[in-house]
This record gives sequence, C-alpha cells and structure tokens, in this order.
Amino acid sequence: MKIKGLVHFVYAICLVSVLLGIQGPVHGRLLSLKKPDPENAAATARWLVSQNSWGVLNTISSELGGAPFGNVVSFSDGEPGKGRGIPYFYLTTLDPTARNALKDQRASLTISEHPIGTCGKTDPENPTCAKITLTGKLKLADKDSKETEFAKNALFSKHPEMKDWPKNHNFEFFKLDIENIFLIDWFGGPKPLTVDQYLHTRTTEYAFILGFLI
Amino acid sequence: MKIKGLVHFVYAICLVSVLLGIQGPVHGRLLSLKKPDPENAAATARWLVSQNSWGVLNTISSELGGAPFGNVVSFSDGEPGKGRGIPYFYLTTLDPTARNALKDQRASLTISEHPIGTCGKTDPENPTCAKITLTGKLKLADKDSKETEFAKNALFSKHPEMKDWPKNHNFEFFKLDIENIFLIDWFGGPKPLTVDQYLHTRTTEYAFILGFLI
Repeated sequence: MKIKGLVHFVYAICLVSVLLGIQGPVHGRLLSLKKPDPENAAATARWLVSQNSWGVLNTISSELGGAPFGNVVSFSDGEPGKGRGIPYFYLTTLDPTARNALKDQRASLTISEHPIGTCGKTDPENPTCAKITLTGKLKLADKDSKETEFAKNALFSKHPEMKDWPKNHNFEFFKLDIENIFLIDWFGGPKPLTVDQYLHTRTTEYAFILGFLI
Repeated sequence: MKIKGLVHFVYAICLVSVLLGIQGPVHGRLLSLKKPDPENAAATARWLVSQNSWGVLNTISSELGGAPFGNVVSFSDGEPGKGRGIPYFYLTTLDPTARNALKDQRASLTISEHPIGTCGKTDPENPTCAKITLTGKLKLADKDSKETEFAKNALFSKHPEMKDWPKNHNFEFFKLDIENIFLIDWFGGPKPLTVDQYLHTRTTEYAFILGFLI
C-alpha cells in the first residue's frame, strides 16, 4: 500500500505540473513557464530569450578569412522574472568570439525553443518549434556601471558556476545591442517585430506568475 | 504486488540503460551512445555531429549589411550508425540562410553537447560540456548524384517529418564542405584537429554498438 501511495503522489505532482505549464527546472533554478500564443510575437520572443540559458553567438572571424563563426555561449537577460530582453554574456579573449567582437562588433545570437523542452517530437527546423536570431553589435559593457552590475546579477543568478570561473582568464561582461529581430514561431515566415516592440512588451504577467511559483 | 513488480521492472530498465550508456532516444530514433574520452578529439567531434539532430548554421547576411546570421537548422551526417561526418541540410530559399549561402558560401555549423543530455548540471559554456564549430563552404548538393541520395537518406531517417514538408517550398539538399574545426571538449583551449583526422577517424566501434542496440 505504501508503494501504491507513492505512485499516486508522483502522478499528482505530474498532473499539477502539467496544469501549471511547468516543464521542469532548467539548471535547477529557472522555471519554464507556458509558451505565449504564437500570434503574440513580442511575448514569444521575450519568452524564448528569458527561458533559455544558452544559444549560439555569431561573429565575423578575423582568424578564418571573415567567415561567420558561431560559438556556444551561456547568456542571461536578467534574474529569473526580471529579464529586460537584452542578452548579456561572460566572455574571455582566450576564446575567439570575444576577440572577434573587439575587432568587428557585428554579431547575432541564435536561440531555439528546443532546449526549453516545449517542442515535443516536433522537428527543431519545423517553424512551430520557435527560433529567434537577434542581430546587432556585441559590445563590452562599461566597467563599474549600473548595467554591468545588472549583467553580473543576471548571469550569476542563472549560471551560478560562473562566479567561480578562473580569475586569470579575465572574463568580462558583454552585451548585444539589438538592431534586428528574426523570429519564426509558426508557419508563414518570420514575424514582423521591431526592437522597440520587443523591448517594451508587457512582461508583468509572466513576472508575477514566476514570483508566485518560486 | 503487481505495482511493486512494475516498479522493479522500471528500475531494472533504468539500470540497464545507465550501464549501456544510453541517455534516451532523440526524436525516438537515434540512441545516444557513450561520450568518447575527451583526449580523443576526432572521436569526440564525430560523436557530437552524429548524436545531435540540430545546430546553428551561420552565414553572411546580404540583407543585414554583411552581419553574421545564425539560424536553427536540423542536419544529419548519415543514417544512424552510418555517419560520415559531413553535415547535410534540407533548406529552402524562403529562408535567409539558403539565400545567403547562394550569394556567399562562407558558413559555419555550431553544435553543443547540451541537447544530447550528457552535460548534466554543467553550464553549457563550461569547456567540459563539449561544443564544435565546423567552418567551411555551404553548397547546394548536385541534383541526382549519389551524394544527394546519401543526404536524402541521412536527413529523412533522422528527421522523418521532412519528407512531408511542402513541395512548393522547394526544399533542396545542401552540404557543408568543412575547412576548419574548432572543438572544445575539456579545459585548455580548442583541441588541435585537422579535417582529415576528423573525416577518417575509426567509427566502426560506435557503429557496431549502435547496430547491436537498434
């Protein structure tokens, strides 16, 4: 009977999770909230950026004849529930991405819905498994500024191990100044979405739900 | 007792899976085999490419002032257990990546170990969570060639829904001719690895295990 009770308890937890739209913890910290309606491009874009912990950051490779060079990076747009939509990074010039950006700031960050766990069995290239590319300039954040403090809290809250990364590797905070947004979240091609719409969409509702859950 | 028996059965399945190094099915088809020793750069690189189903394909955007433009794509280097290391894609010029490549072939494909599920709680930017960037030229595969037949089988076996994608979207087979390999699979910077070493490493062992399991 004890085992039967345990099985019922696990079923109940699963049911509550599904009803609340929780897909499980990402790195044990960030809860994935329900995906917005694909019709709401700005909310979907902000959801993709806030719920993901990593993406591919692309720069122009000065070492490979100007080739577009993608690199797997961790990023954050804010502490859980406090994202602002601007991705911040913690990079070292021991890695080509930071070196490239310091020579040519043109860059893009590409994120898939797939790692969030909400695509199910849908193919990652299928337009209903959302994807976003933020294109702009990859810049070193001003040292000792309020923004750098925000970037530090944003990154270290979602990527706790970063604060222990080797000091002598000279990691620094970078940000992507977004100039263009390419969002696919349904059939019919990219969704029209301006940077202004993206940055100023109302995310209060999501922040409230997150605040309630954690 | 029946429930107790079921619980024991599930435990047994989990134990056998762990012992065999299976991390679960990817899209219900591809089995993730045990990660090679990071010291073996060629095997690790081939494992990353063969076990992943998607990555970010980067091109030079003619529409965004020459910016590096990453896009989430599905790819395949061969049918399960028969990968050759060369990534193939199924792209349409309705999407900017194919349009960019037809104007400027310079491209890179970036893949993370994270989606395979073997990084555990390690941060995706941590060097022990492996990542690879294959840089080269993104080319349209010759129509009606043996290679295109290989690409078709490679892609449709790992991405079954592709064969039903809309005919009027004019999807075509593309390949990445690899010229440079950037592999991070441990501390200490990128692993030296030539294209020749990558393409001609012995993968028989992995193919055998895969053949045995499926």
